[in-house]
Amino acid sequence: MFELAKKMSGAVIFAEHRYYGTSLPFGCRSFSDRNHFGYLTAEQALADYAKFVSDFKCANRQFADSPVISFGGSYGGMLTAWFRQAYPNIVAGGLASSAPIWLFPGMADCYGFYRVATRAYRQAGGETCVSAIRAVWSLMDDIIAMPGGLARLSHLFKTCRPFPNGDFVYEFTKDYLVTLAMANYPYSASFLGNLPAWPVKEFCKAMVDCQPKGRMAPQVEKFACAFFSIYNYQQEDNCLSFDDNATNLDANGWELQSCMEMTNPLCSDGKLDMFKPYSWDPIEFSNDCQRRFGVRPRMSWAGVQWWARNLNTVTRLIFSNGDLDPWSAFGVLEGELVPGATVIRIASGAHHLDLRGSHPNDTAEVRAARALIADHVASWIDAWHRETHPLYCLDF
Amino acid sequence: MFELAKKMSGAVIFAEHRYYGTSLPFGCRSFSDRNHFGYLTAEQALADYAKFVSDFKCANRQFADSPVISFGGSYGGMLTAWFRQAYPNIVAGGLASSAPIWLFPGMADCYGFYRVATRAYRQAGGETCVSAIRAVWSLMDDIIAMPGGLARLSHLFKTCRPFPNGDFVYEFTKDYLVTLAMANYPYSASFLGNLPAWPVKEFCKAMVDCQPKGRMAPQVEKFACAFFSIYNYQQEDNCLSFDDNATNLDANGWELQSCMEMTNPLCSDGKLDMFKPYSWDPIEFSNDCQRRFGVRPRMSWAGVQWWARNLNTVTRLIFSNGDLDPWSAFGVLEGELVPGATVIRIASGAHHLDLRGSHPNDTAEVRAARALIADHVASWIDAWHRETHPLYCLDF
Repeated sequence: MFELAKKMSGAVIFAEHRYYGTSLPFGCRSFSDRNHFGYLTAEQALADYAKFVSDFKCANRQFADSPVISFGGSYGGMLTAWFRQAYPNIVAGGLASSAPIWLFPGMADCYGFYRVATRAYRQAGGETCVSAIRAVWSLMDDIIAMPGGLARLSHLFKTCRPFPNGDFVYEFTKDYLVTLAMANYPYSASFLGNLPAWPVKEFCKAMVDCQPKGRMAPQVEKFACAFFSIYNYQQEDNCLSFDDNATNLDANGWELQSCMEMTNPLCSDGKLDMFKPYSWDPIEFSNDCQRRFGVRPRMSWAGVQWWARNLNTVTRLIFSNGDLDPWSAFGVLEGELVPGATVIRIASGAHHLDLRGSHPNDTAEVRAARALIADHVASWIDAWHRETHPLYCLDF
Repeated sequence: MFELAKKMSGAVIFAEHRYYGTSLPFGCRSFSDRNHFGYLTAEQALADYAKFVSDFKCANRQFADSPVISFGGSYGGMLTAWFRQAYPNIVAGGLASSAPIWLFPGMADCYGFYRVATRAYRQAGGETCVSAIRAVWSLMDDIIAMPGGLARLSHLFKTCRPFPNGDFVYEFTKDYLVTLAMANYPYSASFLGNLPAWPVKEFCKAMVDCQPKGRMAPQVEKFACAFFSIYNYQQEDNCLSFDDNATNLDANGWELQSCMEMTNPLCSDGKLDMFKPYSWDPIEFSNDCQRRFGVRPRMSWAGVQWWARNLNTVTRLIFSNGDLDPWSAFGVLEGELVPGATVIRIASGAHHLDLRGSHPNDTAEVRAARALIADHVASWIDAWHRETHPLYCLDF
């Protein structure tokens, strides 16, 4: 994005989403109750962006007819797609990278996410790696069920603080495995914690290389050893912390959004994926939201607002997805449903790899994707300049 | 619309706009304060429609892939245009008839409305009629300024109740003249009160035919006489009522919308129009809204939400306007700004004449417009059937 902007003499503007970072409309009370956090919606955030672009152009008339291209990954990619849907007058085109626009109830298979995550491990470490991970959950549960088991497991994982309970052990380790799949880049990076190149392969390799010390079930020892070796691959940590390195990018805002309009069912069956079987229940989820935040999700709203799978009128938009990114399960992978848009699939690609700066280790696939993206951006800019876009500036 | 539906074997569904008619979300308290009427917005009304169409199709699967065409006149035409903008997945095409989509501050010349109204009188009765009306305002003000003048004027106009004040005399008579222009149909109709065919021409003719009785300035006597003769052309009324026949179609809702997001500046200069000079002042308007309803208008919102004059991405939409309809001043009259849509102008047409049922007196122009509309509707239906439109039905 920065490289492309330089090449095309474009400016890069990062506009922070309301309720994230320092953009808190009610300061420290922004998350206090629904009267304060109720304005945290995607449509209002997009209206912010639309108004910002207009106001910026009105205040800087030399940019009055400059085309604006939207870039975003993950939720930012969803916003990019929706931005083009809601404000095609404002944005000349968009790259929706790894955008799980169909993460909502009933729009995609809720099992997909963990199946793609599992696929990443299968491709990197074969069925051996997948089976070893799948087997570890019940073995860990056996240990946890024993007196002092949780403490022994904490010791094994070298946690800074003990694991608080068995559910936490599962959720934490599962989320970390997913994180490795999301950040499975061909070079070491620090997107979601510091990770080595191809961390999924490294993890599977460590599962093989680690030597059990005979204190617990060897599969669990290998798992914990692999876990810490990836977590601490830079040899900087003495213990495993639960607080950093996890996927908590403004988790507060996102969890609230999930409980309002971003409901995302995830399921697993332990057969076609390597996780514990889990069925998502809308009632339970809704009750949980009510308990935690005092709100219930508007589950059907995204389908109304963002057209569900009915996207045949969308134009000048790229949906790119890495084939090994768990979020691709909710993405647009087939061009048929978006005849006016472009679908790019990046073999062995992780979460919005194409948005990252170029790197010597980049695969041929992501290089090709970036070249294609650049071509489309150039064509959108040309198209914009052929059209008329009256600017609307209100003086009062 | 009904005729077209019959011809095309379509169903006509009328979905009442929230806060209008009997669709009051909080019953009789719906207009009590901003916590109740704050949900009266165009975007929420359109979301109602989008959800309704989806839900209807989900509940009646035989219509799952039936194309839906939106029809609307005036504000309904604005909604139709915006419906296509916001939900092109839901609506296969739309006829936005006499839709003043640019009635907002800074989007069109605020003088246009009264100039087109004046043009209707000029075309029907020549400059004589226009000058006579323009002259009457100060003559009436002279009478009102005299002791007992308002009562004498009330008597002259045969009002049921006396005019409450001079401002009211002007506003009431001005609005009625505008109403005649809006409802200037080639046959007698009862759209905004019962009116004869070509009421503007009738009014100008009556201004000539009426014989002054020498009690007041003859121009005022002729004006009042013409006024009552049109008002009472069916010879059913003994006096002029202020309550009926006026443009108060759910005025409560519309006035509130004007004070929230539908701000519509109107100006006049008394030179290129036949009305009193009036400058619209945003501050004064905002203060007035605050005083009356406890809200201030979001004047720039419509420009953000509905793209202002930047409509080059709009498709499968017809903007039709009557050339003598005052509201056409805020409508889309040139195809250039809407290259993907269709602009129809109906010579001598009044307010959404094309939406009315056909009539033996219909002009060739409106007949041609309706034929063109039918062609476009047929082509939208064909296009819809060539495309894929996955239906999204949530079971919970």
